[in-house]
Amino acid sequence: MKAKTPDDSRTIMTDTVLPSETNPLNNLFGGELLARMDRAASIAARRHSRRITVTASVNHVAFNRAIPLGSVVTVEAAISRTFNTSMEVFIDVWIEDRFTGERSKANEAIYTFVAVDDTGKPTAIPPITPITDLEKERFEGALRRKQLSLVLAGKMKPKDATELKALFLGDS
Amino acid sequence: MKAKTPDDSRTIMTDTVLPSETNPLNNLFGGELLARMDRAASIAARRHSRRITVTASVNHVAFNRAIPLGSVVTVEAAISRTFNTSMEVFIDVWIEDRFTGERSKANEAIYTFVAVDDTGKPTAIPPITPITDLEKERFEGALRRKQLSLVLAGKMKPKDATELKALFLGDS
Amino acid sequence: MKAKTPDDSRTIMTDTVLPSETNPLNNLFGGELLARMDRAASIAARRHSRRITVTASVNHVAFNRAIPLGSVVTVEAAISRTFNTSMEVFIDVWIEDRFTGERSKANEAIYTFVAVDDTGKPTAIPPITPITDLEKERFEGALRRKQLSLVLAGKMKPKDATELKALFLGDS
Amino acid sequence: MKAKTPDDSRTIMTDTVLPSETNPLNNLFGGELLARMDRAASIAARRHSRRITVTASVNHVAFNRAIPLGSVVTVEAAISRTFNTSMEVFIDVWIEDRFTGERSKANEAIYTFVAVDDTGKPTAIPPITPITDLEKERFEGALRRKQLSLVLAGKMKPKDATELKALFLGDS
Amino acid sequence: MKAKTPDDSRTIMTDTVLPSETNPLNNLFGGELLARMDRAASIAARRHSRRITVTASVNHVAFNRAIPLGSVVTVEAAISRTFNTSMEVFIDVWIEDRFTGERSKANEAIYTFVAVDDTGKPTAIPPITPITDLEKERFEGALRRKQLSLVLAGKMKPKDATELKALFLGDS
Amino acid sequence: MKAKTPDDSRTIMTDTVLPSETNPLNNLFGGELLARMDRAASIAARRHSRRITVTASVNHVAFNRAIPLGSVVTVEAAISRTFNTSMEVFIDVWIEDRFTGERSKANEAIYTFVAVDDTGKPTAIPPITPITDLEKERFEGALRRKQLSLVLAGKMKPKDATELKALFLGDS
Repeated sequence: MKAKTPDDSRTIMTDTVLPSETNPLNNLFGGELLARMDRAASIAARRHSRRITVTASVNHVAFNRAIPLGSVVTVEAAISRTFNTSMEVFIDVWIEDRFTGERSKANEAIYTFVAVDDTGKPTAIPPITPITDLEKERFEGALRRKQLSLVLAGKMKPKDATELKALFLGDS
Repeated sequence: MKAKTPDDSRTIMTDTVLPSETNPLNNLFGGELLARMDRAASIAARRHSRRITVTASVNHVAFNRAIPLGSVVTVEAAISRTFNTSMEVFIDVWIEDRFTGERSKANEAIYTFVAVDDTGKPTAIPPITPITDLEKERFEGALRRKQLSLVLAGKMKPKDATELKALFLGDS
Repeated sequence: MKAKTPDDSRTIMTDTVLPSETNPLNNLFGGELLARMDRAASIAARRHSRRITVTASVNHVAFNRAIPLGSVVTVEAAISRTFNTSMEVFIDVWIEDRFTGERSKANEAIYTFVAVDDTGKPTAIPPITPITDLEKERFEGALRRKQLSLVLAGKMKPKDATELKALFLGDS
Repeated sequence: MKAKTPDDSRTIMTDTVLPSETNPLNNLFGGELLARMDRAASIAARRHSRRITVTASVNHVAFNRAIPLGSVVTVEAAISRTFNTSMEVFIDVWIEDRFTGERSKANEAIYTFVAVDDTGKPTAIPPITPITDLEKERFEGALRRKQLSLVLAGKMKPKDATELKALFLGDS
Repeated sequence: MKAKTPDDSRTIMTDTVLPSETNPLNNLFGGELLARMDRAASIAARRHSRRITVTASVNHVAFNRAIPLGSVVTVEAAISRTFNTSMEVFIDVWIEDRFTGERSKANEAIYTFVAVDDTGKPTAIPPITPITDLEKERFEGALRRKQLSLVLAGKMKPKDATELKALFLGDS
Repeated sequence: MKAKTPDDSRTIMTDTVLPSETNPLNNLFGGELLARMDRAASIAARRHSRRITVTASVNHVAFNRAIPLGSVVTVEAAISRTFNTSMEVFIDVWIEDRFTGERSKANEAIYTFVAVDDTGKPTAIPPITPITDLEKERFEGALRRKQLSLVLAGKMKPKDATELKALFLGDS
């Protein structure tokens, strides 16, 4: 299969925050943002693979900034790295100041999707070639995140996670 | 403040999977499950703290089992450990076989919530005392997960994460 | 078929009240509560019968207490009595005070469900054995409610409703 | 206050049945129909009283006919009788055959609403004058239903419910 | 096929405006009103044709009056003219003053629907006979609107739109 | 106020078609597409004006292509021309073939929005400078559409609509 670039799957979903999606402080529920990111990431995964795709895992997500009712929210998703039948999708969330229009980063998250056929069986997908510096950096980090994911799921022993060991041991 | 137990916050949300929540394979969207878990965990956090609570982060979540349309899904959330103003919430997801009624584990996830006052400022919460073996095990693991969360957010250097280092280095 | 107990079907659905479910006084719409109770009761009926179940009737429901926006609402449903192919489901609705956490009864309702096969034809279900005093009391009352239901639907003559006649005539 | 007629409050809500509102047999959920009827009845109560209105109770409702996905459903609500601050609302539900267009009765229900001021306090409402034979019949039956409602809520002793006693005793 | 009248398809959809349907000024979103009108018009088209119907086009719609949160909105749709396989549907939107109950026109719109068989192929529909003066006026105007629609879609040359040319040239 | 370009307001909303949004042929309801386009156009209008914006009118919209369940739909909106307090927004709708990923035009529509202050009063907005050939063409056509809109709303006499007269009369 011919390699694709992150731009081939880049998916932009701009929408506002409605009253039914907010908590008692009038900010977007964390759970609603997780669901929106999943929808955008799912489309990106489909654009890369041209297959049905299902969510396999969600990496650690931190909610550092509240997103108020009425905000314009842009969720941008693109494939950061592919493995045999799975893809890592990087998601950036932006909000705009209502008056100045200034755009600022509200969140980021990393989801993994698996491509499947109509019976739900995992299927091979095209490789990816990162182009920009940011895309290369995200591509590099993906292997470390995959090891972490396997360790956390109990499918790899911590001592075999070479990339992670290096991270925690530092120069020692 | 008087210590509470996980049972004081235990929240059970049983509901079915509707057609509008399913993907092309007729299984529950990962994003919908993330949103349901957030709602249940948010109620558990509120029951423990008696405060407004907001999602601070979501730990790594793996979706190992598909949840088909029409399934009865039970999301069960309870506080596993408290810190000054934040709480770790452990969430177990169960589904039932439609004919035998047999209940099996479909998923688990860990969310962190912060208790805030009406202006959104973090507020102190009661401590927690784990009772059962499972609750004690989850209580113990929470410190390691908090370090991992800080490292991933770039707020702690890997080499200072003593609990994690021990994990990755093992006996070596 | 082997008898079951009310605990075998007990279904707990805890959730909050969202802005899109409230009336101009910022309280939960009566109709939304009726729909939530129907979903919980339907799951209880399915758990007892392991069949597809459809709502057959709803007994008289009184809305004595308003349920404000943001409340944590627990709907608890369990089979109270079975007949050949139908089940009476008793539903208790609780709300919690946001600050003290004190739980109080907001409502109760009684729905009847019929178990059907895939073609919609009524099907036999297991009997039930009440265990607690409250369960026994609800089991006893069910026959009187069934007669009332038949009279109101014009399917039984009032003078044949022996249980009801006794109620209205008293000792006189 | 000047008397009104049932036509002054008659409310017609015609809509279709969507996939997200159906059970595994592809028929409208009982709970969804209860919620639609509540919305139509609430508008009828508001049209009669020109006040905020809240659901006070729902009489016994039987679901005799399944309403399939895609059906055109007409919910028609009108005030049948008024008391000091409350109104009985009669609701008829019709469905149409998709091919012949023949309209048939699918259901009926009776809700009671209370008119309140902006603080939630019950407020006096105009009286009603039934015009047609059907309206007169429903007006007459309302007193009997109100007694039944009070007896079921434990607010009236069965032996004081004169209208009901007559019903159950017959000519005796 | 036997001719029908506009009353045969007249569809009334009365409902309130919920918080999740409003913009920052607390008025109904234009897009929500467009969707409600489409649902009502679709039912009217189905009542006239007894076929599956799909939206073919929407004429120019002006939003002259804001519709506030909590309003009672009545959407009334009826066929104004038929062509071979398509129908023009006229939609009137009314709102009521909350206190006086006075009904006033908030909007009107014109949609065109096509009747199709189960494979999506356009199908012949019955003709229509307008009865009232308003119905006759709308029937007459439909031909001019159809020409405008064809011109705007680039399917008719402006100079062949005889009805329209007369309009723009006037007596000159 | 400094002039902006169409790119300054360009808004992209990519999402899928869910089962609850489809008609009996399993295609997206026309009304749902109208509502999605309104949301995207409203954000574009807000980005251009940095004000609250409300839908003023929708031009003629033709639905030439069905959009099947599960499709990936991209709604792209940008300001095409500004007047004193109102903006014309051009909306293009694209769908992608599920297997080849080929993108094709499904629809286009033109909405007009008015910028208002917090009291709902119309407010001046920045002018716009079209850059590309397509943007210039849309900018030019906007005046003709505005005249048509005024004529259809009865606010301009057909004989005064100079741009339109030229169109219908041709060279004559």
